[in-house]
Amino acid sequence: MRPSGRAADEMRAITIETGFTKHAEGSCLISFGDTRVLCTASVEERVPPWMRGKGSGWVTGEYSMLPRATHTRGSREAAKGKQSGRTQEIQRLIGRSLRAVCDLNKLGERQITLDCDVLQADGGTRTASISGAWVALRMAVNKLMEADAIKHDPITAKIAAISCGIYQGNPVLDLDYDEDSSADADANFVLIEGGQIAEVQATAEGATYDEEGLLRLLRLANIGCGQIFTAQGTAVK
Amino acid sequence: MRPSGRAADEMRAITIETGFTKHAEGSCLISFGDTRVLCTASVEERVPPWMRGKGSGWVTGEYSMLPRATHTRGSREAAKGKQSGRTQEIQRLIGRSLRAVCDLNKLGERQITLDCDVLQADGGTRTASISGAWVALRMAVNKLMEADAIKHDPITAKIAAISCGIYQGNPVLDLDYDEDSSADADANFVLIEGGQIAEVQATAEGATYDEEGLLRLLRLANIGCGQIFTAQGTAVK
Amino acid sequence: MRPSGRAADEMRAITIETGFTKHAEGSCLISFGDTRVLCTASVEERVPPWMRGKGSGWVTGEYSMLPRATHTRGSREAAKGKQSGRTQEIQRLIGRSLRAVCDLNKLGERQITLDCDVLQADGGTRTASISGAWVALRMAVNKLMEADAIKHDPITAKIAAISCGIYQGNPVLDLDYDEDSSADADANFVLIEGGQIAEVQATAEGATYDEEGLLRLLRLANIGCGQIFTAQGTAVK
Amino acid sequence: MRPSGRAADEMRAITIETGFTKHAEGSCLISFGDTRVLCTASVEERVPPWMRGKGSGWVTGEYSMLPRATHTRGSREAAKGKQSGRTQEIQRLIGRSLRAVCDLNKLGERQITLDCDVLQADGGTRTASISGAWVALRMAVNKLMEADAIKHDPITAKIAAISCGIYQGNPVLDLDYDEDSSADADANFVLIEGGQIAEVQATAEGATYDEEGLLRLLRLANIGCGQIFTAQGTAVK
Amino acid sequence: MRPSGRAADEMRAITIETGFTKHAEGSCLISFGDTRVLCTASVEERVPPWMRGKGSGWVTGEYSMLPRATHTRGSREAAKGKQSGRTQEIQRLIGRSLRAVCDLNKLGERQITLDCDVLQADGGTRTASISGAWVALRMAVNKLMEADAIKHDPITAKIAAISCGIYQGNPVLDLDYDEDSSADADANFVLIEGGQIAEVQATAEGATYDEEGLLRLLRLANIGCGQIFTAQGTAVK
Amino acid sequence: MRPSGRAADEMRAITIETGFTKHAEGSCLISFGDTRVLCTASVEERVPPWMRGKGSGWVTGEYSMLPRATHTRGSREAAKGKQSGRTQEIQRLIGRSLRAVCDLNKLGERQITLDCDVLQADGGTRTASISGAWVALRMAVNKLMEADAIKHDPITAKIAAISCGIYQGNPVLDLDYDEDSSADADANFVLIEGGQIAEVQATAEGATYDEEGLLRLLRLANIGCGQIFTAQGTAVK
Repeated sequence: MRPSGRAADEMRAITIETGFTKHAEGSCLISFGDTRVLCTASVEERVPPWMRGKGSGWVTGEYSMLPRATHTRGSREAAKGKQSGRTQEIQRLIGRSLRAVCDLNKLGERQITLDCDVLQADGGTRTASISGAWVALRMAVNKLMEADAIKHDPITAKIAAISCGIYQGNPVLDLDYDEDSSADADANFVLIEGGQIAEVQATAEGATYDEEGLLRLLRLANIGCGQIFTAQGTAVK
Repeated sequence: MRPSGRAADEMRAITIETGFTKHAEGSCLISFGDTRVLCTASVEERVPPWMRGKGSGWVTGEYSMLPRATHTRGSREAAKGKQSGRTQEIQRLIGRSLRAVCDLNKLGERQITLDCDVLQADGGTRTASISGAWVALRMAVNKLMEADAIKHDPITAKIAAISCGIYQGNPVLDLDYDEDSSADADANFVLIEGGQIAEVQATAEGATYDEEGLLRLLRLANIGCGQIFTAQGTAVK
Repeated sequence: MRPSGRAADEMRAITIETGFTKHAEGSCLISFGDTRVLCTASVEERVPPWMRGKGSGWVTGEYSMLPRATHTRGSREAAKGKQSGRTQEIQRLIGRSLRAVCDLNKLGERQITLDCDVLQADGGTRTASISGAWVALRMAVNKLMEADAIKHDPITAKIAAISCGIYQGNPVLDLDYDEDSSADADANFVLIEGGQIAEVQATAEGATYDEEGLLRLLRLANIGCGQIFTAQGTAVK
Repeated sequence: MRPSGRAADEMRAITIETGFTKHAEGSCLISFGDTRVLCTASVEERVPPWMRGKGSGWVTGEYSMLPRATHTRGSREAAKGKQSGRTQEIQRLIGRSLRAVCDLNKLGERQITLDCDVLQADGGTRTASISGAWVALRMAVNKLMEADAIKHDPITAKIAAISCGIYQGNPVLDLDYDEDSSADADANFVLIEGGQIAEVQATAEGATYDEEGLLRLLRLANIGCGQIFTAQGTAVK
Repeated sequence: MRPSGRAADEMRAITIETGFTKHAEGSCLISFGDTRVLCTASVEERVPPWMRGKGSGWVTGEYSMLPRATHTRGSREAAKGKQSGRTQEIQRLIGRSLRAVCDLNKLGERQITLDCDVLQADGGTRTASISGAWVALRMAVNKLMEADAIKHDPITAKIAAISCGIYQGNPVLDLDYDEDSSADADANFVLIEGGQIAEVQATAEGATYDEEGLLRLLRLANIGCGQIFTAQGTAVK
Repeated sequence: MRPSGRAADEMRAITIETGFTKHAEGSCLISFGDTRVLCTASVEERVPPWMRGKGSGWVTGEYSMLPRATHTRGSREAAKGKQSGRTQEIQRLIGRSLRAVCDLNKLGERQITLDCDVLQADGGTRTASISGAWVALRMAVNKLMEADAIKHDPITAKIAAISCGIYQGNPVLDLDYDEDSSADADANFVLIEGGQIAEVQATAEGATYDEEGLLRLLRLANIGCGQIFTAQGTAVK
């Protein structure tokens, strides 16, 4: 029995509110239940120094939690003067995931930065970030295409992410904070619409799992991402 | 003629949405027109090292802009590894202002941190921050009083802040970004309900002003803060 | 009764010793009583990256206290690896103030840095810094004009600063450390010769003040700055 | 055909030289072909602040590459003043992996730090680090048990790690640098002797993979880790 | 022929103005010609954490140059966020030198910090710093002894420092900036009154030197330090 | 009697294993007894910004200790975010020493970085570093000359370093950790084959020494460096 009363393969409610802020070329507020992340896409007409002059673009991600997004206040990374290992891991994952569905040559020599700022956290902030970042990216690319700045769509597919885990011995989909903090295993899957895997990060915590366990988690992730793909499609209709 | 078509002594629409996030002891999303700031109050049952054992509490502020709160993306302070001078100035101002209406002895040996995170910027982010922080603080203190953790209300009055400036030669109230970026003088007033001044920060930019000019700006500020006091009162009713 | 026995509108002794160091293009040791600040002006034939190619110059300020300028030793900011919020606030104020009396186009594409290093502190270090920085700037600009590097004088007026405050209920001029540490309100005024205001930073500490109080402090500041203008004139005669 | 001429399921030569340095409680130089990592285990009789007084121990990892471990010299992280996201990701993985086979309660209130310093890099430095760290940990724990500081062995099993990937369309085991830099997908598996999975980190680079592909990589990893478990056993005999 | 016209064994004028600042327990402005360093001694009634509870004291040094102490402006270390290797080398040398003439047990569990801030630089700033720091230390210890905080004088002897070098083939005493910047070898000697050596730091620059050369520099240093000991004695008479 | 039983003028065993790592243009593992340092030389076809366009090259050094090179584990400088003053002092010394035997004009506009990483420490790590760095440099320069990238040999002589000290009243050669930690005086000499001195760093610790003492240490250093020159010659034969 899950604390939320959900079935093992049941997602929390997904909502995606596009245009949440007005300056960004693309933006949305994505919610997986009580987890809420503001995702924005910012287009800049230049690429990082190591990419200049190659005619290719770049897509990168940044991630942060507001200090009181969490149950107890965390200290502000800007005040501490450095980003935690966890933050860096997540923002590397966001960038890598979105680049997996982007043809950077078609983007032209420009950079799109996907900022994912967690306003409220209840488990699954990195997976909500990736899923929302795709929506912001799609909106920003649409705007570039409408303005004829880009000729051919660089986005090759939808991408979404979801966490699964083993909670009290059972594989479950879309862990919330209560589950996440006591799960035996925790796996984040980044999946591409059509059945391909972009990234798996599966960690045993306390317990371990075997090949069969890994497969069951992957199958749950496919169910979850299917629903996210639908929500993404509706949001950018 | 102001770019927004407002009268010289006309504020932008003020809205205060309380309880915007669920973990914080107090929270609101305050808007001055398109400027939107998420303010949270976090209570911790300990004070900074230099205050321990004195039986007195502490109220402090932190401030940040999301990278794409602005027209063009700014770099993330956590990534740069330090907070700008501007950020530090503003968070010192927030803390100082809220302490001006708090009896720290009545608060007891605990700290309340007011986090002001700008989701969208269109001028006046520091004044919206102070005004919203008061609402978050009021809610957090109410919760402490309801729980009998505090006996006597430590908050002595409402406090609010507003910017005024000289735009194309005329004193105007509540500058938006278009006005702020080309104003001849820019003044932030932090006022206490009942006619007292907590802080004045008035800077000539390009032009200068004299005693008469300063007084005219102060009188506009009194008009603006009067409206904010009303909105604060409604929000925490 | 003030601790120093001064009248309410009485400044401490002002002395300005020009040429205190030999390498700088302009330098002076300014004293407001026991507060002593070494101000130097350094000319560099290049401007910050964001100003290049515009034909305009830049004036900026830096500020520091020697570790034992104060009653008890403070730790060295270079050793801590960052400048405090207070330091950054003050150096931004110094730069802004001096730019208020400089026509940057007439300066040509060069930068003048005003370093204000407090050798001994007894209240009013930021106001002594601004007042002394003007002298160093005037000397450096004179040298550039004598060398025909600048055709038209970019300095439009004298500028000076002074602190005023409410001490034991009475407005007083030029707070020393004993007064500053227990004042009810503390205001720094940066004034331009001829009656214009460049900057007001007025903060209530403990008590607050009203419009009338603000005006009385401003009038004291006018008295004080008048005396500083005279001392500046004599120093650079 | 692999650049090294190895078969798809063929590991590079594994060597483990124990006691490579004399001060550490456990140490070895582990080689996976030309990849060589010095792993040391250091025992300290105290735990991090957040764990004190719980009677439980802690195991953590640190990782670094010497600047010229690589084909071209990289800059030294100590000189740059911060560790890269990649370094932090790897050292978090090392600690998490070793803790997966440690009963921290049996360790007692002490910390063991596993330092993995790459002397020469040719692909697979993180997997060699984890595999060697287990040897160093085993030696340090043996020493504690011989000295009767620990009664019951806290190490529950052997743990090892190996990378697999899809190279020119084929799943291959133990990527070297030439393969790693052009692989279509790269997966690191951390496996526990007996068939359990501790961690999977699988990333598509350029290409993606499906469920079947993931399983084929996992099966190669089982072959590789089997050989590492044998080498570990011989090394600590 | 030296640029200054001095004889090979001729020092620049030494002046020591005690009591230059009023807050420090000991202070002086020491000049070696145009090199001027403000040295202060600050007494704190606590020692660094690693020395607590041993009944012994500590003496340490800090060093900095004002940005425009030099011919061209250097950037401020506090602004850059770290102290240069050169600064750290010098402050370690200052502390080590003064401890060489201090019986730390007699000092009691307190720390004396010697701050050496270079107001104007013309070669020899580290040697002037050490020589002036001794005067400040002597004054601070005298004050502690007068107050009966210390029973037995912890200072065992005078200590002074001077630079010598090989300039255009000839050994010369007390290099100024013109000589220092083109010397073939540069040696700093820290000598104790009575003929003992506390520290030698001799570096070949361009040319090298042999045993005979080293001895000739040492003998010049003895001449120079003799004159500094006299000046120190007069200053603290 | 020395703890190791060595005679006063007896070195520890010196071994130099060249080609310890394969990527660097030159590399060796040098041992002075139990002190073992991995020295690599890396050639880069560019010089630091301040040297560009002058046709001259640059030689620089970096130094680090692995965290558990020492008896008890030290924290990692990369994790602390800055290099200690000791580390910076040593790496400045390494670079300066090697440049003393290099004609930078003959090197051409390229930089050689000498990385000295201490794998195991037992006293004398900086002197082993300098002595080993010369071997790595010699190998790298040989490779450049064989490739005709350099016409004339820029290396003018061998250079080596050794520590001497006064242990229990007697001058001794090549201090190990046991001696170093209780020596009365500690001196590092960097000598050039043929009798010239490149650098002397002699520090009294506890005791002091006079001119005669300094000479006796220098003569021991000549004996030690003679043996290192022989070992260097054999290593690069």
